[in-house]
Amino acid sequence: MEYAPIDHLDLRRFVREVFEWTGIPAADAALASEVLAYSDEHGIDSHGVARLDTYFDLIQQGKINKNPTIRILREKASVATIDGDNGLGLVVGPKCNEIAMEKASEYGSGWVSVCHTNHYGAAGYYPVQALRRDLIGLSMTNTTKGVVPFNGREKMLGTNPVAVAFPAATQKPLIIDMASSTVAYGKVEIADRQGKSVPYGWCIDAQGQATVNPLEMIQGGSLLPLGSDEAGSGHKGYCLATMVDVLSAVLSGANWGPFAVPFAIKSGTSDTKQVGKGIGHFFGAWDISGFQDLEFFKRSVDEWIRVMRSTPPLPGATEVLVPGDPEHRAYGIRIREGIPLDRKVLDSLRRISTVSGIGMPVYH
Amino acid sequence: MEYAPIDHLDLRRFVREVFEWTGIPAADAALASEVLAYSDEHGIDSHGVARLDTYFDLIQQGKINKNPTIRILREKASVATIDGDNGLGLVVGPKCNEIAMEKASEYGSGWVSVCHTNHYGAAGYYPVQALRRDLIGLSMTNTTKGVVPFNGREKMLGTNPVAVAFPAATQKPLIIDMASSTVAYGKVEIADRQGKSVPYGWCIDAQGQATVNPLEMIQGGSLLPLGSDEAGSGHKGYCLATMVDVLSAVLSGANWGPFAVPFAIKSGTSDTKQVGKGIGHFFGAWDISGFQDLEFFKRSVDEWIRVMRSTPPLPGATEVLVPGDPEHRAYGIRIREGIPLDRKVLDSLRRISTVSGIGMPVYH
Repeated sequence: MEYAPIDHLDLRRFVREVFEWTGIPAADAALASEVLAYSDEHGIDSHGVARLDTYFDLIQQGKINKNPTIRILREKASVATIDGDNGLGLVVGPKCNEIAMEKASEYGSGWVSVCHTNHYGAAGYYPVQALRRDLIGLSMTNTTKGVVPFNGREKMLGTNPVAVAFPAATQKPLIIDMASSTVAYGKVEIADRQGKSVPYGWCIDAQGQATVNPLEMIQGGSLLPLGSDEAGSGHKGYCLATMVDVLSAVLSGANWGPFAVPFAIKSGTSDTKQVGKGIGHFFGAWDISGFQDLEFFKRSVDEWIRVMRSTPPLPGATEVLVPGDPEHRAYGIRIREGIPLDRKVLDSLRRISTVSGIGMPVYH
Repeated sequence: MEYAPIDHLDLRRFVREVFEWTGIPAADAALASEVLAYSDEHGIDSHGVARLDTYFDLIQQGKINKNPTIRILREKASVATIDGDNGLGLVVGPKCNEIAMEKASEYGSGWVSVCHTNHYGAAGYYPVQALRRDLIGLSMTNTTKGVVPFNGREKMLGTNPVAVAFPAATQKPLIIDMASSTVAYGKVEIADRQGKSVPYGWCIDAQGQATVNPLEMIQGGSLLPLGSDEAGSGHKGYCLATMVDVLSAVLSGANWGPFAVPFAIKSGTSDTKQVGKGIGHFFGAWDISGFQDLEFFKRSVDEWIRVMRSTPPLPGATEVLVPGDPEHRAYGIRIREGIPLDRKVLDSLRRISTVSGIGMPVYH
């Protein structure tokens, strides 16, 4: 892969201007650019501007409502279901997360299940917002099918991620952001581009046979749930994907399981049957002060982090990290040195720049 | 293993009478026997009467408060922290779960973090109670250290399970109940007793080397988090264990991470340092009707279950199950045919019977 480090602030500017150019209102375009920037700045390359061209195409083809009326369908104190009106997931997501956080501030916790939406970026962006208000944040989303149920041969569930964040006092916050499959689709794609094999347990081919050849997964195969197989407790990844699918999509009235609407136009179609509206998200927040003295909690998280880091590493490993370390490290480097984008992503941005007339983001 | 099927109702009677004999009040003894019975009746052999002798010894040695004053330490509408006053986890657990469910009925969701408690039985028991009230239930608990953090060589976390249950209309409910380690300690013990090796990825030896010899894990080794290693995304199991530890123990003021109090007296000590009181649980519930029409939701879960079951199985697999199927199947068989107990467990019950004078449970 070739990398060209791009200035992170100018990348935000580019994304914001692109969304504005497509007709997304200015405030919403700024919000969407912030969500994508979170991924690029924190090293989650698969969920940032690498996906801008897909959002761009969906908007240009009228598949996304640029001026959604986000509407509460049902509500009871700390919980609500919201219809995203087919708005951009990068806008519907933050607005619904905001409602969950407001409920948490009022009722001690807040929970919002969302239907009629689409891809909302990195799951981790949302709980991180909750930290500013001294809340514990949580987000989940169902996604287009790509993963088999445990013991199954056909894709029936998405990579359905779960993200949670906990604030600390002097340490950086704990950030958990994980797909419920063994790996994300993007990791298999990267191996294929590099001509490498993948570890046993990541995927199966179209006939349901375990394969280490990434191309056999890409051509009609499927990803395996976290745990992979019987020996690895693959039923547990399936259980996590189930929880995410039910809370995000069954509960909100979105399309669940194999019916989840595909994100990219070119990535094929889901089963033609639709059982709800769009895909689904689930946002939550807990008010720490409703449970515990806030400062005591944060100092305890500091101590928790120090204790975990002090674990002697496995032979061959250099250190024991805590959840969020990879993101915090990537952030430190990328803010200083720019965002590395590979040629394919740069080419997709150039196409958008050419179509829209918006100047390419500058190199760092 | 030898099995002697015991009548499930008489096993409940035995457990209830034993707890009463130790001085636990009658209503609490009945509650505790119900929690243990859930495990034995649903095939979770590791968490039922197999542990009665440990509870018995702890109570007899004055390590558990037989008449706890369960007290709300802090509260805000839908959330609370509760001090279990070192009561039996099988009594503190159900009572705190009840408070979470009451909050859910009033505020749409309810969340209770609990300190100063001990082992609460099978995590799955708690969310299943929520189903009777048309709530979605959730429970977590931290446990004695037995699992390494990802890339770590020493036990720092428990097997920290997560359980969630969703009601259906005509289908049996979805029940998720999973440790965040690849497997539970009991699975390694069983392999050792049977003289079998375990799959690669379950555990490491005392030097941190991967091992398939169960004895090498038992003698100073550790369990691995769900996902096992780098190729299997073992950091994800570590993330789940972190989430459970923080919500159950850091938030409530219990002992977290390596400081979690050991369950069995004979199973050695944790680090002498204590950072809180007892171990911690976390209970939650969501009121479905706050999000969605209740009947629509339940019918959708029915349909979800039918769709997942219809997945073509992998070559060599006979069918695709849904979460909860193993429990429901075991229940059907055990209510009809009795509870199979192995000789070691039967011997432990005989010892209790001899000490207490309470008649052994009868064969089916």
